[in-house]
Amino acid sequence: MHADLICFSELATCGYPPIDFLEFRDFIHKSMEVVYELAKESIDIGIAIGSPTINPNTEGKDLYNSAFFLYKGKVQHIAHKGLLPNYDIFDEYRYFEPSSDFKTFQFKNKRIAITICEDIWNLDNENPMYNFCPMDKMMVEQPDLMLNLSASPFSFEHTSDRLSIIRANAKKYGIPIFYVNCVGAQTDIIFDGGSVVASSDGSCYDELNYFEEEIKCYDLDKVCIGKPHFEQVKEKYDLIYRALILGIKDYFHKMNFTSAIIGLSGGIDSAVTAVLASDALGSNNVHVLLMPSEYSSTGSVADAIELANTLGIHHEIIPIQSIFETYLNTLKPYFKDLPANVTEENIQARIRGMLLMSFSNKFKYILLNTTNKSEMAVGYGTLYGDLCGGIAVLADVYKTEVYELANYINRQSVRIPINTILKPPSAELKAGQKDSDSLPDYAILDKVLYQYIEQHKGPNEIINQGADKNLVLKILKMVNSAEFKRFQSPPVLRVSYKSFGSGRRLPIEGNYLY
Amino acid sequence: MHADLICFSELATCGYPPIDFLEFRDFIHKSMEVVYELAKESIDIGIAIGSPTINPNTEGKDLYNSAFFLYKGKVQHIAHKGLLPNYDIFDEYRYFEPSSDFKTFQFKNKRIAITICEDIWNLDNENPMYNFCPMDKMMVEQPDLMLNLSASPFSFEHTSDRLSIIRANAKKYGIPIFYVNCVGAQTDIIFDGGSVVASSDGSCYDELNYFEEEIKCYDLDKVCIGKPHFEQVKEKYDLIYRALILGIKDYFHKMNFTSAIIGLSGGIDSAVTAVLASDALGSNNVHVLLMPSEYSSTGSVADAIELANTLGIHHEIIPIQSIFETYLNTLKPYFKDLPANVTEENIQARIRGMLLMSFSNKFKYILLNTTNKSEMAVGYGTLYGDLCGGIAVLADVYKTEVYELANYINRQSVRIPINTILKPPSAELKAGQKDSDSLPDYAILDKVLYQYIEQHKGPNEIINQGADKNLVLKILKMVNSAEFKRFQSPPVLRVSYKSFGSGRRLPIEGNYLY
Repeated sequence: MHADLICFSELATCGYPPIDFLEFRDFIHKSMEVVYELAKESIDIGIAIGSPTINPNTEGKDLYNSAFFLYKGKVQHIAHKGLLPNYDIFDEYRYFEPSSDFKTFQFKNKRIAITICEDIWNLDNENPMYNFCPMDKMMVEQPDLMLNLSASPFSFEHTSDRLSIIRANAKKYGIPIFYVNCVGAQTDIIFDGGSVVASSDGSCYDELNYFEEEIKCYDLDKVCIGKPHFEQVKEKYDLIYRALILGIKDYFHKMNFTSAIIGLSGGIDSAVTAVLASDALGSNNVHVLLMPSEYSSTGSVADAIELANTLGIHHEIIPIQSIFETYLNTLKPYFKDLPANVTEENIQARIRGMLLMSFSNKFKYILLNTTNKSEMAVGYGTLYGDLCGGIAVLADVYKTEVYELANYINRQSVRIPINTILKPPSAELKAGQKDSDSLPDYAILDKVLYQYIEQHKGPNEIINQGADKNLVLKILKMVNSAEFKRFQSPPVLRVSYKSFGSGRRLPIEGNYLY
Repeated sequence: MHADLICFSELATCGYPPIDFLEFRDFIHKSMEVVYELAKESIDIGIAIGSPTINPNTEGKDLYNSAFFLYKGKVQHIAHKGLLPNYDIFDEYRYFEPSSDFKTFQFKNKRIAITICEDIWNLDNENPMYNFCPMDKMMVEQPDLMLNLSASPFSFEHTSDRLSIIRANAKKYGIPIFYVNCVGAQTDIIFDGGSVVASSDGSCYDELNYFEEEIKCYDLDKVCIGKPHFEQVKEKYDLIYRALILGIKDYFHKMNFTSAIIGLSGGIDSAVTAVLASDALGSNNVHVLLMPSEYSSTGSVADAIELANTLGIHHEIIPIQSIFETYLNTLKPYFKDLPANVTEENIQARIRGMLLMSFSNKFKYILLNTTNKSEMAVGYGTLYGDLCGGIAVLADVYKTEVYELANYINRQSVRIPINTILKPPSAELKAGQKDSDSLPDYAILDKVLYQYIEQHKGPNEIINQGADKNLVLKILKMVNSAEFKRFQSPPVLRVSYKSFGSGRRLPIEGNYLY
């Protein structure tokens, strides 16, 4: 089958988001070279591809976020993005001039409208962030179809919104839409694909794979008539599981590494991380260290060994006692008889971080961080200790969600030991320690965190929903005062619509709510 | 003397930049409470103050960056910022709707125009980022003076630009300008003050202190006539020195800490950091650890002790050999006979980081990071080792500039040992190691880094200026591949116009120039 037209995603020549590489004129030229190379291949096929381009006008930002249509070896049409997202992880207004000029073009016997990602997200001017709708302007030229080139990142809440807005666009304008989304992870940002072909009546003609590249060919006449209807199943923990697998896989691929190292404590976070890593990289590429101290329970070590054996991953047991004692002896002349406190807990966590990093350096493994979102939120972790790592796998998954994810992983057979799931969480950094000694129950904690982090609710709004006043104030203060730790933490694989990282930017010294 | 009017700076009710706290409606209400409280004090004095406010329109961003004029207990006038910076460290378009409506107001027998910071930076429409000039619109109402409320951050190159643009505005519009800038550091961003009163003829009537709060009262009639002319001296290393002092001071103040700890190697970076810390916090609040290994030269230890004695700061000497050997013994069964490499170097750096953090935890000291900009650029530092710290004092100062700063510090008497300045730089992590073994000469390196980081030049542009091709490519690749380290590094006190941190955002995985 010979296709007439092939469509790539937004900024496909340079990857999304290129961030401040866009400020290098040389980088823009290199991106454009890709367009010109591709043009040479367009002799008998139309090619739509996204690239940053230089704004030739003296007024306005230096660049446009553009889409090229190539055919017969030449650039036939250029469309510039009109609606520039500048919220959460998006900073397009930092670089790009929004276009206000929208034209369709003729290709063979069809008139085509090209839109870029956000351009379709102000249907009926319902989005207060924008005051026009590019497609409204193009409809006067009566296009036969719309191509949308996207780089729309994954969050588990977002996949169905996306399908709805595409269908609503197709229905309103009465033309088919080919929505082509990027697939692959760029460090913390995971692009989930799930490209959509919508028929003129607003029905979903086809929805492509999530988290996997896929090339599919469609007969436009058939799409126009409508009918074949396929939607991907979207289940929260299945989506999160697959997103994290892709996130790990692409991080290693793009950083040019093959193997991971993980510190396995016997707890649920490191267990889930180990499963994800071995599913992403292959069990022979995952190495784990068990680093028990005098405070580690025998149960924890046994659970960790059981997991490693089930997964078929290599493990080593390196007790940290002798190093810990050498530190304590070295520090004794200065600490004298001061009581043990968080200092000594941190030393243990940091010895583990150091041993893991030593393996990382010596054997070219990447250390995966196992912190969850609840811990990351309240600062329940040691900077330069358990907060070490190349990428944080679970730091956008609340503790209560980590349990759900563990159950999802165990849905067909027990991969994560039941005891790991059932026992009360503990950092095991002092005798008899439990998370519940210093943190509220995770079911309560996570609800408050969600209100504050995802919903941007202030203390009174959260208290008015029935939460205990002192508890809410304590939790919010913990979140704010942990900002200095998050600032130096690894990038976080983003699976929700409000993840720690570039989508959430808070002052380290902000004394709001103190 | 009773003043008729007092003027505060931009967003003074909440501090600048509040970043994503602006997304909390509760935060906006709390900021507005400050305005209403202040209004009560405005019975017989006019008060101009900046605050975020809610945009009442359904279209557009949720907020305005506003200035209030309060008098007789009430809000008399509100001005919204029209030109919103969205580059480098600025993200105002993330939160604020730009205003297009500009009005003056009457106060006593004068007509006043209020502008906010960036509003005066598109004089004669010369700035391509903006397509109008707020003051042009207000001039039809013939104001008698302009108040500008600013939060303009320091960079050593920026102070004279600022004075020029204020004078050019005064001259063009023929009215006096009272330019009120914020003073104080917000973690990495240092606001340098240097408020300006310009006369109607464009001359500088007065320029206030840099890096210090100052309240001064002016007679408007005299300012209109012009004459008294005072400009602050602006010398690069004096500015940088004072900026860093303020940066350290405010970081400790706002984080509610009083004492610092620093690892003193005998090298120039830690020596300059120790001087800055003791000048900022007082020598009794600075504690230093000397942590020699078998690779430390006796000269280094002697230089460090000499510095500590000169500054009158407390020092402890803690050799790291026994901890290092315990690590090596612990790792021996796994590393076997693999040759020593960067792994063992990193272990030493991390032991030092861990000891410093132990003192930090036990005694509530903040660890100051001593990395310079050249090292930070090329990744010549150990993550979780010498890259530890609450704030990086010198990471926006190139190595060649650190030497200049040391000479500035020594200008009246030798505070930093001459030997520290003269000896070749070395990390002393293996026998006979020198920085020049793995890095080009700093004079060459810093020039290339400046072209790439500050000037956004691509490799060919840098090579065309006469630099060695292979060297340039090697350096740029080092910069790009160190992004993962910078991501997890402490906030960097910003003194140049392109500092590592929120003003420079690059992908960790970007393979541009690989």
